[in-house]
Amino acid sequence: MADFFNVISPPDAIDLMSEMISSVGFETVYTEDALGRTLAKRVVSEENSPSFNRSSMDGYSVRASDTYGASDALPAYLELVGEIPMGSEAFLSLSPGETATAYTGGMLANNADAVVMVEHTKITPTGLLEVYRPVASGENVIMAGEDFQIGDSILAVGKTIGHAELGALMSLGITSIQAYRTPKVAVISSGDELVPPKEKLTGGMIRDINLYTIGALVEGLSALPTLFPRVPDEFDELLDVGKRAIEVSDMVVFTAGSSISSRDLTAQVMNKMGSPGVLIHGLSVKPGKPTILGFSAGKPIIGLPGNPVSAITIFKAVVDPLLRLISGQKIFPGNKIVEAILNSNLPSTSGRTDYVRIQLKNENGKTFAVPVHGKSNLISTILESDGYVEIDSESSGVYKDSLVEVYLD
Amino acid sequence: MADFFNVISPPDAIDLMSEMISSVGFETVYTEDALGRTLAKRVVSEENSPSFNRSSMDGYSVRASDTYGASDALPAYLELVGEIPMGSEAFLSLSPGETATAYTGGMLANNADAVVMVEHTKITPTGLLEVYRPVASGENVIMAGEDFQIGDSILAVGKTIGHAELGALMSLGITSIQAYRTPKVAVISSGDELVPPKEKLTGGMIRDINLYTIGALVEGLSALPTLFPRVPDEFDELLDVGKRAIEVSDMVVFTAGSSISSRDLTAQVMNKMGSPGVLIHGLSVKPGKPTILGFSAGKPIIGLPGNPVSAITIFKAVVDPLLRLISGQKIFPGNKIVEAILNSNLPSTSGRTDYVRIQLKNENGKTFAVPVHGKSNLISTILESDGYVEIDSESSGVYKDSLVEVYLD
Repeated sequence: MADFFNVISPPDAIDLMSEMISSVGFETVYTEDALGRTLAKRVVSEENSPSFNRSSMDGYSVRASDTYGASDALPAYLELVGEIPMGSEAFLSLSPGETATAYTGGMLANNADAVVMVEHTKITPTGLLEVYRPVASGENVIMAGEDFQIGDSILAVGKTIGHAELGALMSLGITSIQAYRTPKVAVISSGDELVPPKEKLTGGMIRDINLYTIGALVEGLSALPTLFPRVPDEFDELLDVGKRAIEVSDMVVFTAGSSISSRDLTAQVMNKMGSPGVLIHGLSVKPGKPTILGFSAGKPIIGLPGNPVSAITIFKAVVDPLLRLISGQKIFPGNKIVEAILNSNLPSTSGRTDYVRIQLKNENGKTFAVPVHGKSNLISTILESDGYVEIDSESSGVYKDSLVEVYLD
Repeated sequence: MADFFNVISPPDAIDLMSEMISSVGFETVYTEDALGRTLAKRVVSEENSPSFNRSSMDGYSVRASDTYGASDALPAYLELVGEIPMGSEAFLSLSPGETATAYTGGMLANNADAVVMVEHTKITPTGLLEVYRPVASGENVIMAGEDFQIGDSILAVGKTIGHAELGALMSLGITSIQAYRTPKVAVISSGDELVPPKEKLTGGMIRDINLYTIGALVEGLSALPTLFPRVPDEFDELLDVGKRAIEVSDMVVFTAGSSISSRDLTAQVMNKMGSPGVLIHGLSVKPGKPTILGFSAGKPIIGLPGNPVSAITIFKAVVDPLLRLISGQKIFPGNKIVEAILNSNLPSTSGRTDYVRIQLKNENGKTFAVPVHGKSNLISTILESDGYVEIDSESSGVYKDSLVEVYLD
């Protein structure tokens, strides 16, 4: 039993799995339903935006040269020939010395090349416009195509649609996109010691947590979890559920019981689910060593450790990047990492990747990373912390006052 | 027209509005459906977790004193009297010199106070257990109540349920919670120049973007947007829609057209929707000055600027904190701010809060904040940036190399 694990490092495991991963297919999605979806084809603008020279101020469109030298003491006087209402075509043309009312977001009169802000003007009793400031050509005007031009690549493949992307697409009249399908992830919990959360505990029974925490983590990545709760630790039954799960899913995650026999069973089932079966049995990490990774029918299968904290840790460190690859999310959100100053020494064993839970503290404008001590199997350590640091396998630890990268939850 | 705005600063506006805001009511929610919901009542543990002294390793439960002095050269020899299977009650009691197989997550035998890891043992041909390392009392054991104890306050009011909170609740058998209702937010777009995104543009027409960007931002805060698209700039019709919207919603957001008349109309409608109507007309900010804030029937009403970038900016700076207050989210996520070194001077006008879009760049392990220049009304500036910095109204600018806080999108 001593050499149970054929361990490799998490980065090596991710690389190995990534080579065999293909992303899910794509489908046409209405832009208005595309929030959180990931682009499978890049978006190119077929229009200029804005489509016309647009005023960025409320005021008066002018020929800029008519305002040169204007000041409070010596205003320029222009003849107000009308207005271009919001949404209207420019039906007026300015001759030298003429001006027309312009609205924020509206068209300028023809021949106008700038807008004077209303605050810098006054209408005289005789109806002339007094202008107190000169404007340069182009001032207070957004030129046609200044936001996006025909042929501009607006959004790249792998980009996730957020509010700004939605706005850009709508502004260009792009009302449907090609998006990756939402990946379906089966989460199977097994372990004879598990009972549903609603049950009173007796003897050595524990409540099934992983089903829910892993389901929530899957949802957090905009994927669709399907939960298969509490399959007994029995080969035929677990294999049957596993086969059903992989048929309807793009990825299968087992959260086995934490006993060796339960883990062994998961590996046996994974091997029978289809070729090649188990690829990696054990990771050189703490926590999370008893992790199993494999494939069947081109779909990744992951056996997570039974311990809830280890399961969450391995999900974040290993399953998260694999699921992003499947879902086509090529651009990783950079805003999930913050730098902080480690406030105590963190010893580590060389040859093993350590994930240490961190609480962030701000003091005098500096961000400190405070390791959350206590046994790693306590879910309270995750509740109390903001994220984790990874100490790679080459390192034998990190010294106090070092700058560390904290991966936020 | 010169003194159109009765401007105050965004923090003052938020304070003023906050005094009159009450959070939405709460309801009972099954924990398994509670992901993303916000707690309205604190959660107290009614159990110890774990409920029994649990092994954290695969190995053998022992009386620790039986292992003292054990080494490779001089192992301790213990009589293996059986095993406590996963999930089983401890039906064995150890006399001195006895041991029983223990599984990760399983119970220890009675009288045992520690677990020897399987890696530090061997079974002799005669069936005795050889132990090569001493263990201290409590070693490799999670004591009953070590994660949570009866009476512990587990989760505070205002906490949002994420994967870890879900796990903690389930581990304690708490299968329902009191959560704030999901706030409903009506988003009304108006402006005679607006057309639906699918339409070809003619003349001075522009496509309606704000309806979608603001709807997406509402969804991003786990609230439920209801979209009321493109109401004409006509008092009776807009008031009718406004009244219907406030009846079915907890907050109403108008995104008016960008012309003065359209904004005026919004203010008039807000005043007729109910008492007190408009409270704040104009903010001392750039961009986003033409923002209107008010109340009707105790529900906040916001008139956003028509310019899409201004609307997004004001949503983040002003509407976001108000919506969080309504939804009971008292604990603000701290992970949306990163510190970065400003890479150029940022001049600002004193007496006005400036929001400047920022692109983050990492160089030599340092994070730099690069202001995204270009006209503030371009949605491309938001696409290119990662967040924004706020330059408060007392400041006349921020110097290059200053440390700034970037609010991430």
